[in-house]
Amino acid sequence: MTDAPTPAWIAVDWGTSNLRAWAMGADGNVLAEAESDDGMGKLAPEGFEPALLRLITPWLGGNPPILACGMVGSRQGWREAPYRAVPCTPLDPAALIAAATTDPRLNVRIAPGLMQADPADVMRGEETQIAGALRLMPGYDGVLCLPGTHSKWAHVSAGEVVSFQTFMTGELFALLSTASVLRHGMPGAGWDEAAFDTAVSDALSRPERLGARLFSLRAQGLVAGLSPAAARARLSGLLIGMELAGAKPYWLGQRVTLIGAEKLSAAYVRALAAQGVTAQRLSVTDCTLAGLASLSPQTEGAR
Amino acid sequence: MTDAPTPAWIAVDWGTSNLRAWAMGADGNVLAEAESDDGMGKLAPEGFEPALLRLITPWLGGNPPILACGMVGSRQGWREAPYRAVPCTPLDPAALIAAATTDPRLNVRIAPGLMQADPADVMRGEETQIAGALRLMPGYDGVLCLPGTHSKWAHVSAGEVVSFQTFMTGELFALLSTASVLRHGMPGAGWDEAAFDTAVSDALSRPERLGARLFSLRAQGLVAGLSPAAARARLSGLLIGMELAGAKPYWLGQRVTLIGAEKLSAAYVRALAAQGVTAQRLSVTDCTLAGLASLSPQTEGAR
Repeated sequence: MTDAPTPAWIAVDWGTSNLRAWAMGADGNVLAEAESDDGMGKLAPEGFEPALLRLITPWLGGNPPILACGMVGSRQGWREAPYRAVPCTPLDPAALIAAATTDPRLNVRIAPGLMQADPADVMRGEETQIAGALRLMPGYDGVLCLPGTHSKWAHVSAGEVVSFQTFMTGELFALLSTASVLRHGMPGAGWDEAAFDTAVSDALSRPERLGARLFSLRAQGLVAGLSPAAARARLSGLLIGMELAGAKPYWLGQRVTLIGAEKLSAAYVRALAAQGVTAQRLSVTDCTLAGLASLSPQTEGAR
Repeated sequence: MTDAPTPAWIAVDWGTSNLRAWAMGADGNVLAEAESDDGMGKLAPEGFEPALLRLITPWLGGNPPILACGMVGSRQGWREAPYRAVPCTPLDPAALIAAATTDPRLNVRIAPGLMQADPADVMRGEETQIAGALRLMPGYDGVLCLPGTHSKWAHVSAGEVVSFQTFMTGELFALLSTASVLRHGMPGAGWDEAAFDTAVSDALSRPERLGARLFSLRAQGLVAGLSPAAARARLSGLLIGMELAGAKPYWLGQRVTLIGAEKLSAAYVRALAAQGVTAQRLSVTDCTLAGLASLSPQTEGAR
C-alpha cells in the first residue's frame, strides 16, 4: 500500500465506454492512474460527478485542478463544450468549459472537440491527442492518423488542424466480427499476417468490391475451409485497406504519424509500409497527457 | 371459418428468421398460407418437425408431399442438403434430400443450395427463386438480382446459373442503422428520395470513400441538422451504390430482372435506372412457388 498521492493536477480522458484518470506530479510525471467502465454512454447527466468521485477521491486532498477531454463534453455528456471549427489550434485554454459540481473539492474543466463544416466532420478527444503530438514533435507539419472505433486523419500545419476526416473502420470491424454472419467464421483471436496484407492490397485496388469480399469470407469458410485466423485478418485488412483508399489524399507523399493502440497501430504501419509510406508512432497516453497539460499555465509549467 | 384445405402439395420457404408455407391446389393455385418466426436460426435439429407441425397440421389430411427450400437445408438446419456447384441448373429434382420425420403424415424433401468455387460463394433459397423465374420467363438469358440481407446477382443462360456473386448490403444496412453510432441520426421510417439518388451516385463514382461517408451521416446530423429521413435514405443509397459499383459486370449492358421485396426492389430499379438500365421485376413468392413446383412430376403437372 502506498500513501494517496497529492497531485498537482488530474488528467481525465472520458470516452463513450471508459473513464481514465491520471494523478499528475508537479514535474509532469504520473503519480497514479485509475480506470473504470463508467463511460459517457452509460451515464445520465447527474451520474458524472459520482462516477468521477468513485475513481479519484483519494487524490483530492490538495483540491487539484481537473482537466478532462472526450465525450464527457458532448451534448449527452456532463456538460456540452461546443465544438470549435477548423482550421484552428487543436486546443484553446480560453474555450474550456467548467462542469457544475456539488463537491467543493472538484474543479473540473472540459476541453471542446473540433468540427469541420464541409465535408461535415467532428471529433472529441482526438483534438487533445493532436495537441499533445504537436508538443511532443514541435513544428510538426504533416498528417496524424488516429486509428480506432472512428479513425481520424488530420492534416496539421503551423500548429493548427487544417482539415480532418473520420472513417468508421473500427466500428465496422466490431459489428461485422461479432454481430454479422461473418462472426461464425472467426472465433478466437488468431491472426494471419499474409491474409491481412493481401486484403489490404485487394481493397486498395478494387474498393468497390467490399460488399462482395465481405460475404466471400463467409463463403470461403463454408466451401474452402478458410481458417478463423485468416478470416479475421482479412476482414481487418479489407476495412483498413478501404480506409487507406479513401484517405489517400492524407498519406500520399505526406509525413505520417500514428497515434493509437499498440496492435492496431502496428497493422496501420504495416499497411502503409506496403504503400511506400514510413509512418512513425506515438503513444495515445503520452499524447493525451501532453495535450491536457498544455491547457493551463499551472499544468503547462509542470511539463 | 373455412374448412381445412386438402392441398395437392405443400410449399415451404424456411429461412434463417422465418418459416413460410403454402397449401397448393392441384391447378397450382394457393389454397392457404401460413407463417411463423420459427426460423432455422432459433431451432435445434429436433425442433424442425414440431415447428412445421405447428404451422401446417391442418393441411396434412391427404398426406401431401412437402417441398422446402432455404436455410433448412444448411449444416445447422434440419438436414444438410449439400451444395450443387455452378455452372448448373438452379434446381435438380434428383438432388432433393429427404428429412427424417417421426410423424407418418410428413413427407419432406429439401432442395440444395448452390456453391461457386472461385470466387467462393454460396446461396440457399435463392436458387429456387431463380428456377421459378426461369419458368415464368422461359428462355430468359441475362442477369437476375435478388436484393436482401445478402443480395445475389446471378448470370443465367441456357437454363443454367453460370456465375453469381453475393453482397452483404442488407445486413450492413441493418447493422449500421440499428447497432452503430449512426442509429442516433435515423429514428423513424422516413425517406428522402433525392438524398438516396445522390448517395447512389456518390458511391458509384467514389466507392473508396464509403467509410468516410458513413461517418459523415453522423457528423452532418450533429453540425448541419441532417434529417433522419435523409440520413436513412442516404445510408441505403451509399450501400446500394457500393453494391452496384461492385456488381457492374453483372448489369452493364445486360438484361436485368429483380426478384425482391416491393420497396427494396423499387429502390434498386431506381438506382439502376439512373445508370441507364431498365430492370423488370418479379415477385419473390411467385418465383419461390414456381421454383418449388418444378421439383416433382406431381407438382410440376399442377402448374
